[in-house]
Amino acid sequence: MSCKKSGDIPIWKKLLQHADIMARSEKHLKNLIKEKERLEKFSLKGADIFYDFSRQRVDEKTMDLLFELAETRKIKEQFSSMVSGKKVNTTENRAALHTASRSFSDDPVFVDEKDVMPGVRRVRYDIKKFASKIHEKKITGSTGKPFKHVVVIGIGGSYLGTEFVSCALSVFANKNLELHFLSNVDIHNFGQVVSRIDPETTMWIVISKSYTTAETKANAKLAFEFMKEKGLDPAKHFVTVTSKGSPGDDPANPVLCSFHMFDFIGGRYSVTSAVGGLPLSLYLGYEIFERFLKGAEEMDNHAKNVPLHKNLPVIASLISIWNNNFLGFETGAIIPYATPLCKLIPHVQQLYMESNGKSVTKEGDSLNAPAGVIVFGEPGTNAQHSFFQLAHQGRPFPIDFIGVITPQYEQYQCKSKGVTNHQELWANLISQPLALAIGKENKNKARYFPGNRPSSTILLNDLSPESVGRLLAFYEAKTVFEAFILGINPFDQFGVELGKKIVTDIRSEIAAKNEKKDHKFDKIDPIAGFYLDTLFSGSS
Amino acid sequence: MSCKKSGDIPIWKKLLQHADIMARSEKHLKNLIKEKERLEKFSLKGADIFYDFSRQRVDEKTMDLLFELAETRKIKEQFSSMVSGKKVNTTENRAALHTASRSFSDDPVFVDEKDVMPGVRRVRYDIKKFASKIHEKKITGSTGKPFKHVVVIGIGGSYLGTEFVSCALSVFANKNLELHFLSNVDIHNFGQVVSRIDPETTMWIVISKSYTTAETKANAKLAFEFMKEKGLDPAKHFVTVTSKGSPGDDPANPVLCSFHMFDFIGGRYSVTSAVGGLPLSLYLGYEIFERFLKGAEEMDNHAKNVPLHKNLPVIASLISIWNNNFLGFETGAIIPYATPLCKLIPHVQQLYMESNGKSVTKEGDSLNAPAGVIVFGEPGTNAQHSFFQLAHQGRPFPIDFIGVITPQYEQYQCKSKGVTNHQELWANLISQPLALAIGKENKNKARYFPGNRPSSTILLNDLSPESVGRLLAFYEAKTVFEAFILGINPFDQFGVELGKKIVTDIRSEIAAKNEKKDHKFDKIDPIAGFYLDTLFSGSS
Repeated sequence: MSCKKSGDIPIWKKLLQHADIMARSEKHLKNLIKEKERLEKFSLKGADIFYDFSRQRVDEKTMDLLFELAETRKIKEQFSSMVSGKKVNTTENRAALHTASRSFSDDPVFVDEKDVMPGVRRVRYDIKKFASKIHEKKITGSTGKPFKHVVVIGIGGSYLGTEFVSCALSVFANKNLELHFLSNVDIHNFGQVVSRIDPETTMWIVISKSYTTAETKANAKLAFEFMKEKGLDPAKHFVTVTSKGSPGDDPANPVLCSFHMFDFIGGRYSVTSAVGGLPLSLYLGYEIFERFLKGAEEMDNHAKNVPLHKNLPVIASLISIWNNNFLGFETGAIIPYATPLCKLIPHVQQLYMESNGKSVTKEGDSLNAPAGVIVFGEPGTNAQHSFFQLAHQGRPFPIDFIGVITPQYEQYQCKSKGVTNHQELWANLISQPLALAIGKENKNKARYFPGNRPSSTILLNDLSPESVGRLLAFYEAKTVFEAFILGINPFDQFGVELGKKIVTDIRSEIAAKNEKKDHKFDKIDPIAGFYLDTLFSGSS
Repeated sequence: MSCKKSGDIPIWKKLLQHADIMARSEKHLKNLIKEKERLEKFSLKGADIFYDFSRQRVDEKTMDLLFELAETRKIKEQFSSMVSGKKVNTTENRAALHTASRSFSDDPVFVDEKDVMPGVRRVRYDIKKFASKIHEKKITGSTGKPFKHVVVIGIGGSYLGTEFVSCALSVFANKNLELHFLSNVDIHNFGQVVSRIDPETTMWIVISKSYTTAETKANAKLAFEFMKEKGLDPAKHFVTVTSKGSPGDDPANPVLCSFHMFDFIGGRYSVTSAVGGLPLSLYLGYEIFERFLKGAEEMDNHAKNVPLHKNLPVIASLISIWNNNFLGFETGAIIPYATPLCKLIPHVQQLYMESNGKSVTKEGDSLNAPAGVIVFGEPGTNAQHSFFQLAHQGRPFPIDFIGVITPQYEQYQCKSKGVTNHQELWANLISQPLALAIGKENKNKARYFPGNRPSSTILLNDLSPESVGRLLAFYEAKTVFEAFILGINPFDQFGVELGKKIVTDIRSEIAAKNEKKDHKFDKIDPIAGFYLDTLFSGSS
């Protein structure tokens, strides 16, 4: 579907005019939140997640206009196209079927007239079987000892989602397996990982769709040599997750097992595929992974089936567009009041910024409304003791506060100042959005709080695998809805190509110098040349 | 020293006019970096750190104007006032003497006519003695077993700096002591920590200047009760770092040892005081901590003594002001190509955003030029596979790239594509600033790179304790120089007060409900009331 640039459609202009109205002092949040039934009107629950946008700088008119924008851009239709296997990743001529990876429906999903679901189910089945053999110690390392360490070698989308989910659900890990991540090509990353493992009981999972990712290949090679040096047969310790027929799926390079990735699931959307499925099933058990998938499926169904004005990720995407394009906020924070969700932040940072950090429509025209904000964050209350000085009195930025009603630990009920730690945490979760919204007058300007700083509050009932799956799928759906409104393709990432091209030249220069000590760096950018000389001389 | 608002001084207006010139196409970075001796003119070395700003959007005229700004604001004089013990924290009538905490000079430093140095040296001596008794097992836990775990209970400035340094230097840890952080009042944080320790061999270090920080007190109480429940005497397992005479320094509450904090060192500047000194000396040994201090002292002396145009933190602060106030960038990233520096990011996030996220001058007048940008980041190359799509083609933001010439691990030299992992990492460190600066034309707009995206590159010779100390002090000095230019007070944080005030009311409501089941939340903000009902009913 081709469509106009977002800035050119009439409703966009109406929203710009409306933003001027919302800038008036009577529309300050301290006034908006006093309105009758403010919370009832500006909050909703779906797929067991509560979403409160009553402290966003919107009124009923704002929402009406935003829903009209969503209608105009046919975002529900675009979502349906996506989940039904249409090639919505137009620039790469691919489907975007991360939703299929957690579908437990019997319905087929056709790509190029072929049902992809049998393949998806097969991978899930293979993971389940393999994980149970590892847990039952039917498969062991080359010396017969059961595995105790799993190292995931993968970067970006092959790493961040799995890291998030494994941290969020670590309390469920009872398989006597430690999970490690070797993402960075930085030798410190490798050095730290090998200082924590026991090679004999270590499984390395190499994750790369193309099996050509430079960092992953370099780390896999290093790990391979490391195992050989320890006298261990790498073929009995390596597993790959990669596309069918890639160099990582070549019988000439034997491995313990190989799991397939599909070209219709992009890295940053892949934690519900084998990319997350294998390490998470090993670490947590396949049953926990499946419960996580079912939570994600529930949110997918909500996103697909529920009308716009009751649809959580739709509303979240509209609020994000409103804050970015109409109120002019260039950043947005995620502040989970739940330490296990700390790795949600780098995950969403990738998911959202790589998907929506674009400057062209999916047809390749320059945007006339900026896409994508910068996402950052830290858990609360830590963030309060870090950058909330700026949040309250410096440059404002919208926040997603996230709360968990029932924590994973119920056994510590000791009270301080009459409240438990969980209650103290919630007292802060409740106070911060309120303080940011209402502000406080003071003649002493150093103690004046302007307020009118917007936030949403998202509540999960608990940190069960299902809840974490719902939250993951919520941010995925929000991200793609936002792209659909802006008319961009959230599934490509041509922006990383230039760096990859230049690094090829620089790498060749280094390799040439490794070969021939007298090689001169005189054919490249002189500043780059200086750094190469510095690297080889060991001093700047 | 009172001074004009930054936006009102003549040089500020000259800089605004000059920014228009720098926006012209001939001033695109792809052209600037081609100029003869670009790197020589726009880079320098000091205190063993190399700082390259040749890929910043500045020319010689820019720097002349910025140095004039620095002169006008007398920032070197302000820095000298700070290190000499003047009460530069005017709003709280305190000195700001973090530099004293790493001074090994024999010179006195007077505050209120009293030399503070004997007290500083005494604390260092006490830490050294205590740490060595722990390492020699002369002090043990209540059952006679040597300590194996140290849990730091502290939040914000009592935590982030120590976390940064302990991660950066973990390779030096050889004292058989594991270091844990209990910062968040979140019960998940407590649950996770206690799942990793052995109570009998655990020392808890409670760090709070006032000993009234709600999170820290709640966690300390929880830990205290936990130890008692395990039948262990908390007095033999607890250590405090706090102000003389605070409730944490009360003989009525006996502890293993108590170390003093001074009111002239603020939390976010306190890692070189007992706050960092005690946990780091236990974890790494006092000798390593002292080497770290000496690196910081070296940078302090550089910042204090070297003229403006050769002064690293001065130039870094001017570049930051230029990017923020004249080029309009609202964010800035830190991308260390060194995994051990990953926790530099949250540390600087606090240090910088809490110091400079202000809206008033130190005299209490509203600023007419915005202070403080939003700091975020992830290690490279990880960041390239996360948000660099946006960095190259979306909303631009300035970046501090950080490289390390000699890594902590030299033993893994296996090559991939002809280069070692460390060389591959550097190939990326070299390529990204170049790609961001030069961009690339393409008629296909999806593959067009606008370039002109500014960055600095900071090189450390290695990740020695000295280098980490220099880097810490570099960011501290940059932060305060920037504040001095803007005329703000980087040492107070009134912006956190409103949240603290509201949370007191909310906490009381919760405590009342804990006491009396039929307590109604009808006297507070109705949205807050809804969340309180949700917390108590266990469902939204």
